[in-house]
Amino acid sequence: MDWGTELWDQCDIIDKHTQSGLDLVEKYVKFVKERTEIEQNYAKQLRNLTKKYSPKRGSKEEQECRFSNHQAFLDILNEMNDYTGQRELIAENMMINICIELTKYLQELKQERKMHLSEAKKAQQSLESTYKQLDNSKKRFEREWREAEKAAQCAEKTDQDLNATKADVEKAKQQAHMRTHIAEECKNDYASQLQKYNKEQNQFYFTDMPLVFNRLQDMDERRIKKLAHGYILFADTERHVMPIIGKCLEGMTRTGTNVNERNDSVVLIEQHKSGFERPGDVEFEDYSQGINRASSDSSLGTPKGPLELLGKNKNKTFRLFNKKSKVGFTTL
Amino acid sequence: MDWGTELWDQCDIIDKHTQSGLDLVEKYVKFVKERTEIEQNYAKQLRNLTKKYSPKRGSKEEQECRFSNHQAFLDILNEMNDYTGQRELIAENMMINICIELTKYLQELKQERKMHLSEAKKAQQSLESTYKQLDNSKKRFEREWREAEKAAQCAEKTDQDLNATKADVEKAKQQAHMRTHIAEECKNDYASQLQKYNKEQNQFYFTDMPLVFNRLQDMDERRIKKLAHGYILFADTERHVMPIIGKCLEGMTRTGTNVNERNDSVVLIEQHKSGFERPGDVEFEDYSQGINRASSDSSLGTPKGPLELLGKNKNKTFRLFNKKSKVGFTTL
Repeated sequence: MDWGTELWDQCDIIDKHTQSGLDLVEKYVKFVKERTEIEQNYAKQLRNLTKKYSPKRGSKEEQECRFSNHQAFLDILNEMNDYTGQRELIAENMMINICIELTKYLQELKQERKMHLSEAKKAQQSLESTYKQLDNSKKRFEREWREAEKAAQCAEKTDQDLNATKADVEKAKQQAHMRTHIAEECKNDYASQLQKYNKEQNQFYFTDMPLVFNRLQDMDERRIKKLAHGYILFADTERHVMPIIGKCLEGMTRTGTNVNERNDSVVLIEQHKSGFERPGDVEFEDYSQGINRASSDSSLGTPKGPLELLGKNKNKTFRLFNKKSKVGFTTL
Repeated sequence: MDWGTELWDQCDIIDKHTQSGLDLVEKYVKFVKERTEIEQNYAKQLRNLTKKYSPKRGSKEEQECRFSNHQAFLDILNEMNDYTGQRELIAENMMINICIELTKYLQELKQERKMHLSEAKKAQQSLESTYKQLDNSKKRFEREWREAEKAAQCAEKTDQDLNATKADVEKAKQQAHMRTHIAEECKNDYASQLQKYNKEQNQFYFTDMPLVFNRLQDMDERRIKKLAHGYILFADTERHVMPIIGKCLEGMTRTGTNVNERNDSVVLIEQHKSGFERPGDVEFEDYSQGINRASSDSSLGTPKGPLELLGKNKNKTFRLFNKKSKVGFTTL
């Protein structure tokens, strides 16, 4: 079943159908292009998101990475970055392997289709031109034959005319003979034109146009094959990176699993343990046994009350928990 | 290793550390919220894309779905819709299972932390108050003992004063005795206050504050556990829908694989084949054998030239390929 045989009289349909096929490719390319723009935009937003939440170098957040629950967040951001890279790859590969590839192919097909249709048109114009010649030739034959008949009638009439001279009769007969001869020549010409036309018409309907239509069919089938490949690439581009995306997601899950809350508590201890003993009992200062009275006015060696344990007092001299001063309650 | 024992003098650090932990949860919730917004936006754009390219009901595009390469594009759009639904599900589940859940938990933790810190503050204030009492009591004892000594010296001086009367001596001795008695009472009070303070201080450093710090540690570890679960959910939400997304992508690939270009060519034939034979040879009209001359002027039964095969002529009477008129070249 081919178009050349089955659709020999459906050139208009084939014209429209192949155009509609190219339109579909064009539409699909546009669709994929818009999809890649969405992917790029999505990836860009994800990049901005991870960037926004990534700690600045030497910041407080970076220092807090000693704690696994802080570090895990940074690990997730890192995995997100890899993840985003894969989304960018999807956009890029769709653009290169589908949009650019199909656009290039589309241009070739447009050229090819134009060529086939122009060949069909040329063949048709040639047949039309031959037909016009045939028509002219036929009309001339008809006209000349009428003239010849008229001349024959005229000769017959002259022959039966009692008043006609022999010369008149001879002249009319010659005229009729000449006319018949011309008409015969026109008939031969008409016959020859008809033969030429029929040969060309046969060539047109049984060889030339079927060839053009079959080439258009072949072109359309190649277009469909290429488009179908483009369809497959649309999903496969993403399927191709899915294992890596899966690995990124696994990495994020692992990062969550690796968080160790007990360990984070210990890290805080290791970082901030002063090593001092908790204050023992305040001793009794027995003035009645004559201790140095001056010392009772001095702040040294005298309990000054429980120190600012809750860190609300911003007076530095009272903040004994300041990591750098390393002064504990043992001064009491 | 627990904070209550090891970090007994690091209340300020514990305060800041637990606050920083809550800040991290808050930051993570914000991060996930922004991620869901990106996902929702992404899904919305994908929805708009498929909607834009889906054919209107009864449109030309819909009719062209008889061709597998057109139908495949619609199948891809349908799969894209399912795919988009999964992206929406990711956004929705992240919002519900991470953002809302952690925000709720965060409120509880904030309350709990406030409560623990307020308990610590209360205990400290109570100890400070007891200390002030102790200090006052000690100062009174010191002051009264000094007065008693002064009175004793005065009594001794009076006793050795040759001009002093016996009554003077007796009065001074009584005064000294009274002062000593008062001082002894103050000493007892100081001793009792000291005992009370030491008991409370011990309770403070060895029981109350460690309890508060350990509760804060426990709270922080619960926070970390919950946050780690939130980290795991971040990736698992997406991993959960990956098989379905994979199925959508498989569906798209299959749709591309199912495109059959040969079949599409046949569908066009079945749809548009006129069934007419291609025109045979144009017959010779021999006027010399006396055919009906009138017929040569009539358009019927006379070749009118090759018909508009390329569909460029918009004159309807010449468009024999119009599907509805079903008139072929056989009229020639």
